[in-house]
Amino acid sequence: MTNLSGLSAFPITPSDASGRIDLDALSAVVAPLIAAGADSIGLLGSTGSYPYFSREERRRAIEATVAQSSGKSAVLAGIGALRTDDAVKLAQDARAAGATAGLLAAVSYTPLTDDEVFEHFKIVAGESGLPICIYDNPSTTHFRFTPALVGRIAKLPGVIAVKGGAPEPSAVAAHLDELRKAVPAGFSVGYSADWNCAEALIAGGNTWYSVIGGICPRISLRIVRAAQNGDAATARRWNDYLEPVWQLFRQYSSLRVVYAMAEIKGLCTAQPPRPILPLSADARQKVADVVAKLDLA
Amino acid sequence: MTNLSGLSAFPITPSDASGRIDLDALSAVVAPLIAAGADSIGLLGSTGSYPYFSREERRRAIEATVAQSSGKSAVLAGIGALRTDDAVKLAQDARAAGATAGLLAAVSYTPLTDDEVFEHFKIVAGESGLPICIYDNPSTTHFRFTPALVGRIAKLPGVIAVKGGAPEPSAVAAHLDELRKAVPAGFSVGYSADWNCAEALIAGGNTWYSVIGGICPRISLRIVRAAQNGDAATARRWNDYLEPVWQLFRQYSSLRVVYAMAEIKGLCTAQPPRPILPLSADARQKVADVVAKLDLA
Repeated sequence: MTNLSGLSAFPITPSDASGRIDLDALSAVVAPLIAAGADSIGLLGSTGSYPYFSREERRRAIEATVAQSSGKSAVLAGIGALRTDDAVKLAQDARAAGATAGLLAAVSYTPLTDDEVFEHFKIVAGESGLPICIYDNPSTTHFRFTPALVGRIAKLPGVIAVKGGAPEPSAVAAHLDELRKAVPAGFSVGYSADWNCAEALIAGGNTWYSVIGGICPRISLRIVRAAQNGDAATARRWNDYLEPVWQLFRQYSSLRVVYAMAEIKGLCTAQPPRPILPLSADARQKVADVVAKLDLA
Repeated sequence: MTNLSGLSAFPITPSDASGRIDLDALSAVVAPLIAAGADSIGLLGSTGSYPYFSREERRRAIEATVAQSSGKSAVLAGIGALRTDDAVKLAQDARAAGATAGLLAAVSYTPLTDDEVFEHFKIVAGESGLPICIYDNPSTTHFRFTPALVGRIAKLPGVIAVKGGAPEPSAVAAHLDELRKAVPAGFSVGYSADWNCAEALIAGGNTWYSVIGGICPRISLRIVRAAQNGDAATARRWNDYLEPVWQLFRQYSSLRVVYAMAEIKGLCTAQPPRPILPLSADARQKVADVVAKLDLA
């Protein structure tokens, strides 16, 4: 049984201007995550810009990363698409390429109803046989899962986990409690929104789906392992240490900041897919200052 | 000089479950719009589910509709895409296929900045040579244009019009005034959100980008021609007549309702692209009741 827990590290997907993924650069970005012992690689997540890449490119990236990891880190692959039939094909591709599980968002253009999203998950899970993590990210998909809908989908065969945005620390225990009541026992409940995730882990969340973990895995793992060991003080200390990064993420968006960090750290020089622009020179300098000041391994 | 004004009628794009457009069914849907004298066909708009179709399918639909119209109605073709390079290709295809203009939305996954959207429009307009209508539809794209940004983009060569959601009748005159101050003289300012569009035309809007116009063009043209002739009372009377339709649109979404109307009127039996589901039997019956009660030509 696939069990997503701990640190799921979400790398960028380096590519050229026409959407061709640079597998050498991707390998350079992914290597430190495997070496650090990330529990899973969140390949082609929102940080990996999955909807901007073709089916063929996504298949190439998954195959390369599965081979590179060779079982050391699980590979959770983004399989979201606007059309249900396309999401089925992406899930089938991910399974054939050896991905551990698929991360499925409710990508929308026409706003979707709860029943439409439920059917979407049912068809993708049923027709692919790939274990599925529900991806709740209203800031990109503009669909908001209720705990009741998460509960309905969580009972479908093959659906194993949920990744939602972590609420403010004061609200996370109640949020987690509400979700736990909606899903089957043993279902993995994890969080993104990096700056709130230390508290989400301390409150009992299973997994941190982490943007910073996709570029600074060692310091992210310090937080995760401390929380898993019941050492909240250490988890909070490292989270506080990262506050300058959280400020950058909130001001400039985590995606644009980690592209700049990858360049500053010498991992790759790729830019985000257009229309997304790289940071301005001023903002890039602020990122460089934080990278120089902190020990971001 | 291309001049979008009057009724732009937005048909659905009938297709099979795998996203292949049914050109015979599309022709059946489009024929009454041309026959009624719609000023333009808003092909592959949001009602036409453009982001759910491949580049090849979109090209086929534009070629067929341009041939069918043979100059009687202008063809405004949706060219929106998540990637800038893809939107450029779609705009080039639309121009090669003989479209009059392209309707370009700020399609987003990663939330976009104003500068990113500006560059997107600049590149698509510049590299395609296709006249461009700015498509402001935050309910689907999740990007909101300010009047200042519309003004910046409107000054780019080749950008000729803007289509925005019509505000409530009490607010439309001020909204139109603010936009007129931001854009060059003669720039076409038009509206969607059908139930508010009669008042938007009466207030001086150039164009009604109309969902109901894509299936009931004659009654829609009564409203447009009355407003153009300064006969606000007649425009309002026909708008009031359509109130039962507006109620259906608001309750079930215009897209799902017009799919049901196309089936009830015998035009085609296509369903929306999955994950979007057709209306429930109960809701379809409410649509059938309105179609039976009103004279919706």
